[in-house]
Amino acid sequence: MKVAGRHTRTLWLAEDGVALEVIDQRALPHQLVVARLAGLEEVAAAIRDMTVRGAPLIGAVAAYGLALALRADDSLMALGRAHETLLATRPTAVNLRWAVDEMVAAVKGLPAGERAAAAYARAAALCDSEAETCRAIGRHGLPLLERAFAARRRKDALHVMTHCNAGWLATVDYGTALAPVYASHDAGLPVHVWVSETRPRNQGAALTAWELGQHGVPYTVIADNAAGHVMQKGLCDLCLVGSDRTTARGDVCNKIGTYLKALAARESGVPFYAALPRSTIDFALDDGLAEIPIEERDPREVTELGGVRLTPAGSAARNFAFDVTPAALVTGILTERGLCPASRAGLYGLYPEAARP
Amino acid sequence: MKVAGRHTRTLWLAEDGVALEVIDQRALPHQLVVARLAGLEEVAAAIRDMTVRGAPLIGAVAAYGLALALRADDSLMALGRAHETLLATRPTAVNLRWAVDEMVAAVKGLPAGERAAAAYARAAALCDSEAETCRAIGRHGLPLLERAFAARRRKDALHVMTHCNAGWLATVDYGTALAPVYASHDAGLPVHVWVSETRPRNQGAALTAWELGQHGVPYTVIADNAAGHVMQKGLCDLCLVGSDRTTARGDVCNKIGTYLKALAARESGVPFYAALPRSTIDFALDDGLAEIPIEERDPREVTELGGVRLTPAGSAARNFAFDVTPAALVTGILTERGLCPASRAGLYGLYPEAARP
Repeated sequence: MKVAGRHTRTLWLAEDGVALEVIDQRALPHQLVVARLAGLEEVAAAIRDMTVRGAPLIGAVAAYGLALALRADDSLMALGRAHETLLATRPTAVNLRWAVDEMVAAVKGLPAGERAAAAYARAAALCDSEAETCRAIGRHGLPLLERAFAARRRKDALHVMTHCNAGWLATVDYGTALAPVYASHDAGLPVHVWVSETRPRNQGAALTAWELGQHGVPYTVIADNAAGHVMQKGLCDLCLVGSDRTTARGDVCNKIGTYLKALAARESGVPFYAALPRSTIDFALDDGLAEIPIEERDPREVTELGGVRLTPAGSAARNFAFDVTPAALVTGILTERGLCPASRAGLYGLYPEAARP
Repeated sequence: MKVAGRHTRTLWLAEDGVALEVIDQRALPHQLVVARLAGLEEVAAAIRDMTVRGAPLIGAVAAYGLALALRADDSLMALGRAHETLLATRPTAVNLRWAVDEMVAAVKGLPAGERAAAAYARAAALCDSEAETCRAIGRHGLPLLERAFAARRRKDALHVMTHCNAGWLATVDYGTALAPVYASHDAGLPVHVWVSETRPRNQGAALTAWELGQHGVPYTVIADNAAGHVMQKGLCDLCLVGSDRTTARGDVCNKIGTYLKALAARESGVPFYAALPRSTIDFALDDGLAEIPIEERDPREVTELGGVRLTPAGSAARNFAFDVTPAALVTGILTERGLCPASRAGLYGLYPEAARP
């Protein structure tokens, strides 16, 4: 997508053809900073500290992490260690595991000496394919938003609520939840986005607001607390969020606070969709609430903000990073293959090859 | 309640017997600053800019605002103007109107020359009575929390979730939602409070955390977004919030985000109570969602925090300060007269004198 008018991805290979360069998302929206990641440890740290974040992007960056690790040491033992290091960075998103598993499968059968080059090639292909996947999500989402526009409550625009950042900054390009928004905007549909700030790390206020603004899509930032009121008052036509892991029966794990929006959407008759690529679906799990590990991050993300302490000194705090929205609250799941109900039948219908023997 | 071991109210008369002194709540939790309010305009500004906040406290401070206005000019015209000025400071809380109406009724029949002294006396009585009212809420809430403790999900403690600040800082003393928590803690019940930070003004993280800490009640701060997850995971036994205006049928208007907690509570089978004094009940209204005016505050409360800008420059933002939780989501309403269902029958049962002829 565009930054100051120029097409940009969230990651690219440096001029030396070795190191990875990424947009440092911690510096947005105030500065566009590029971080250079020249080895496995730097990649792992960038995922842990959220220099890069967003389930699809984490997977893409981790793929390059394996390539960088193999360039330093292309033994199978080093490959195994790198795989383990990357998997340990963040526990909830499943795209990470999907991407590093893909990478290992692509190179482990090759002779030493060929693995690193093959890994770079596979990582590049994976990035291109994830970008195309997101573009397809946008394409399939466009008719959904056109129908919602026809049924909209207020005549000014289609009002879409999202949560956190599931835009192009969360992916290689185009985004997941925001891909249909961009596709609709580009098709001339008047669309306005309610952006909830997404405490504690404010990815909505910082990242979603920034990328929508760069692309010229109108938006309004609200406190997370205001999402229920906005829906109660008929100011929102549709919710569209991303996911960090979606189970075979359609339970959607996403940034903390997504579940509250889903409850409010159901209560006000607002359809609630999750948009995600195949790599986000964990067909090995069914019950998201019981089975998905929920990352708990440093409590200082809750107690401090930009160096400002928000609580009394010594306050206990907990920082749950994700929650699970049960399938029953999800109107539909939008993927690169189209729209389906949030159910086993729906997801296996789109991905028959995922059916267990 | 206690500050550093010394019993303190949120407001008191200065040594000169004329000016009002209040805890400046904008400086908490980092500093205990006392603001001196020496005239009507200073009182109105302190309410508008949230030097003081919390529906019951706003009423008490406004009562002294009328006394200060009458001391400067005790004509009935000045009384009327002061009444109007104070009512215009904040539109949602009804205690403000109740308090200034009480004050006007108490002094308007008196001859000029006697009104100011009578107003000071009436304001002092009103504060004492509001403090006693809150103490009674605590007394009636104690058996409720004892029953919840007996039925608690985890053996360590009774886990209560609150929102915003409905503690003693929101009242003259003791608090509304936190009065039963203090009463239970003082009675030896192990009670732990989940404190949601309450964006955009962070009254949970700043005020509730501070006053619970001063009193020695264990608490944990969470992002507002985490409330649903905490309930889904069985980590909360009971929700207890305050109210800025409650209608005759039991719709509870309270700080933005309360409604999302109520939805999550119902979904997880967690009882949801609102605690409030009589002065918060607006028997003139039924349908809270349609009839209660929702204050919209400066969007900069959303886009900036402690001088740190959270959004891109030029971001649109909206700052809804309250929402309405429909009575159907409210398990019960706790007042100085006891506990009742959130319904016309329940509220008129506690306050038969409010029944219209």
